[in-house]
Amino acid sequence: MPELRKDPVIGRWVIISTERGKRPTDFSKEPEPDIARLCPFCVGNEDKTPPEIIAYGEHGREKNKPGWRIRGVPNKFPVLQIEGGIDRKGDGMYDKMNGIGAHEVLIETPNHKEELCEMDDHRVEDVLWAYRDRIIDLRRDTRFEYILIFKNKGAAAGASLTHPHSQLIATPMVPVRVRQEILGGKQYFDYKERCIFCDMIIQEMDSNVRVVAENDRFVAFEPYAARFPFETWILPKAHDSHFEDLQKSEALDLSKILKKILKKIKIVLDDPAYNYIIHNSPLKDPPLPHYHWHMEVIPKLSKIAGFEWGTGFYINPTPPEEAAQFLKEAD
Amino acid sequence: MPELRKDPVIGRWVIISTERGKRPTDFSKEPEPDIARLCPFCVGNEDKTPPEIIAYGEHGREKNKPGWRIRGVPNKFPVLQIEGGIDRKGDGMYDKMNGIGAHEVLIETPNHKEELCEMDDHRVEDVLWAYRDRIIDLRRDTRFEYILIFKNKGAAAGASLTHPHSQLIATPMVPVRVRQEILGGKQYFDYKERCIFCDMIIQEMDSNVRVVAENDRFVAFEPYAARFPFETWILPKAHDSHFEDLQKSEALDLSKILKKILKKIKIVLDDPAYNYIIHNSPLKDPPLPHYHWHMEVIPKLSKIAGFEWGTGFYINPTPPEEAAQFLKEAD
Repeated sequence: MPELRKDPVIGRWVIISTERGKRPTDFSKEPEPDIARLCPFCVGNEDKTPPEIIAYGEHGREKNKPGWRIRGVPNKFPVLQIEGGIDRKGDGMYDKMNGIGAHEVLIETPNHKEELCEMDDHRVEDVLWAYRDRIIDLRRDTRFEYILIFKNKGAAAGASLTHPHSQLIATPMVPVRVRQEILGGKQYFDYKERCIFCDMIIQEMDSNVRVVAENDRFVAFEPYAARFPFETWILPKAHDSHFEDLQKSEALDLSKILKKILKKIKIVLDDPAYNYIIHNSPLKDPPLPHYHWHMEVIPKLSKIAGFEWGTGFYINPTPPEEAAQFLKEAD
Repeated sequence: MPELRKDPVIGRWVIISTERGKRPTDFSKEPEPDIARLCPFCVGNEDKTPPEIIAYGEHGREKNKPGWRIRGVPNKFPVLQIEGGIDRKGDGMYDKMNGIGAHEVLIETPNHKEELCEMDDHRVEDVLWAYRDRIIDLRRDTRFEYILIFKNKGAAAGASLTHPHSQLIATPMVPVRVRQEILGGKQYFDYKERCIFCDMIIQEMDSNVRVVAENDRFVAFEPYAARFPFETWILPKAHDSHFEDLQKSEALDLSKILKKILKKIKIVLDDPAYNYIIHNSPLKDPPLPHYHWHMEVIPKLSKIAGFEWGTGFYINPTPPEEAAQFLKEAD
C-alpha cells in the first residue's frame, strides 16, 4: 500500500510509492520508452492492459476488444491504490494516510503514431469529453477530494510509453498548489469582487500582446509571469470554476483551440516533449466565483536547476510577448 | 534590464530574462558543458572572468592572479542586474519591478577536477565561510531582501560549467516558497510554542530510521515526506534562523557533514548530478524563533513529470527510510 505523507512545514502531501520501491541501481537504467516492446495501448493488444473502465467506439462492440476510438483503463502501475480506507493517522509529529486513489490511463487513439494535434476535431473532443465522463463517475466516490488530469508527451516530459495517452489521478486530498491558487483567487475576489482570471482574460484580450489564439468560447495566451518559455494557458472566456461543467456545445471549441496550440508548439519548437495539466476546482466545492478552471501547456525545453527547486522562483529566458509572437505566426 | 514579474494568483515572482532572450531555435542546441572550451574558472584564467569580489589565498597575492584557494566573481551572464533602482510599478492588473539583484559565482577550487566531497575539511569550511562572508557583505545593500545560495553539479542538475562552483543570487523580494516555509513554521510555533524544525530533529534522532549522519553540531536525515529519492536535509542541532550567524567553531562540523553526505550520495548513486540549496531566513528579519536554517541536498535521479508540475504534489519511488539505510551504510 503506497503512503501519503504530509510535509509538516509546507503542508505538501507526497506519495511515497512503496510498491515501486526503487533501489539506487534502478535509477541508472530507466528503460527507453517502447524499445522492442509490444505496445499495450495499440489496438489488438487490449488484453495487455487491465480491463477497460470507459470506451467510445463502434456500436455493439465487445468490451476489451478492437473497435474503440478512445479507451480508459486503470494504470497497470498505479501510484495510488483504489481499494481500502483512507485511515488518517499521526506518526509522532507527522501526518499520513493510506495511498488511496485512482490512477487511470486514457488511450487517445488506437493508432500508435497518431498525435493529438493531428486528429480530427471531433476525436479530440472525444478525449476531452472522456475526461469529463471520468470526473463525473469518480466524484461519486466520496473518498476523493481532487482529480488531476494531465498529459505527458515525450520521454523528457515523463512519458514512459509513446502511444498517445493522458492520465488521471484522483486523490483523497487537495494538492497544495491548487489550494494556493484558490486562496490567491479568493483574496483577489474579497478585495475586488471580481474573478482574477476573468480580469486577466479582459486585460490580455485588450492588450493583445500575449494572446496566441482564440475562438468563440476560449482564449489562449502566454501568462504575464510565465515560469517557462512558451508556457501557454487556455481558459474558457465565460467564468466557470469546474471543468466537468463543460457543455457539449463548448467541447468542440476547446478541442479546436487545444489542437491549434499543440500544433503551433510542435511547429515552432521542433516537436518538443510537453506536459499539459487541467487546473480544476476541488470535487466537493460548489461553483466558486473566485476560481476559473484552465489548462496549462508547458513545452519541456529547459532544465529546472537548483535555483528553481530551492525557491519556487523561476528564470524564464524567453519573454512571453516574444513567445506569443512566434506561436501566433506559426501555422 | 531583466524584469521581475509577479504571478497575480500565486504571488510567485519570475525573472523574465530579456538579456538572454532565447528564441525557439536556441533550445535545441544548448551547448554541452565545457567541450573544447577553455575553462574560465581554472587557475591561470583569472582574466576570463569579471574582476573578483572575494578570494581566499596566499598572503600578499595580487588580485585576479593565481595563488587563490577560493574565488568569488560576478556571474558573466547574470540573471539579475546589480545597477539601478527597483522601480516597482503596475502593468494594468499586474505587478513588476526592475530585475535588480546580485548574481555571483563562487569558484570552490583552482583545480578543475577536484570535487567538493574530496577536498580537505578545512577547504570545504572555506567554501561555507565564503558563503557567509558574501551574505554579510551583500546585506548592507538595502535593496536586497533575500540571498539564495546553491550549487548545481552536473549538466542534468543545470550546471553549464563542470569546474566546481556554487552560486549566489540576491533578490529584491522574498521568494514565495521561502515565505511559505516561514509561514508554516510560524503557524506551528503559534500553536505549539516550539520550532517545528527543532521538533523534527528530536523525533528523527529518537526514531533513528531516517538519520544518515550526525556530529556534535549537525544532523542529516531524509525528510519524512521527501519529494525526491535520496533527498537529504542537513540542520544545525541548536536552533538558529540565519545561516550567516554561523560561528567559526561550527563551520568545521558543517563542512564535515556536508562532505560526508555528498560522498555517500556519490557512492550509492554512482556519481549523480545534484543540487544543494541553503534555506535561510530573509535578510531583514530579526532572529526568528519559528524558522531554522538548513541545507537541502537533492540528487537528480528522476524526471519531474506533468503531475508534479501541475500540482506541487510529488511521487517519490524510494521510501526515505530505505534511502537512509543505503546512505548510512555507504562509506
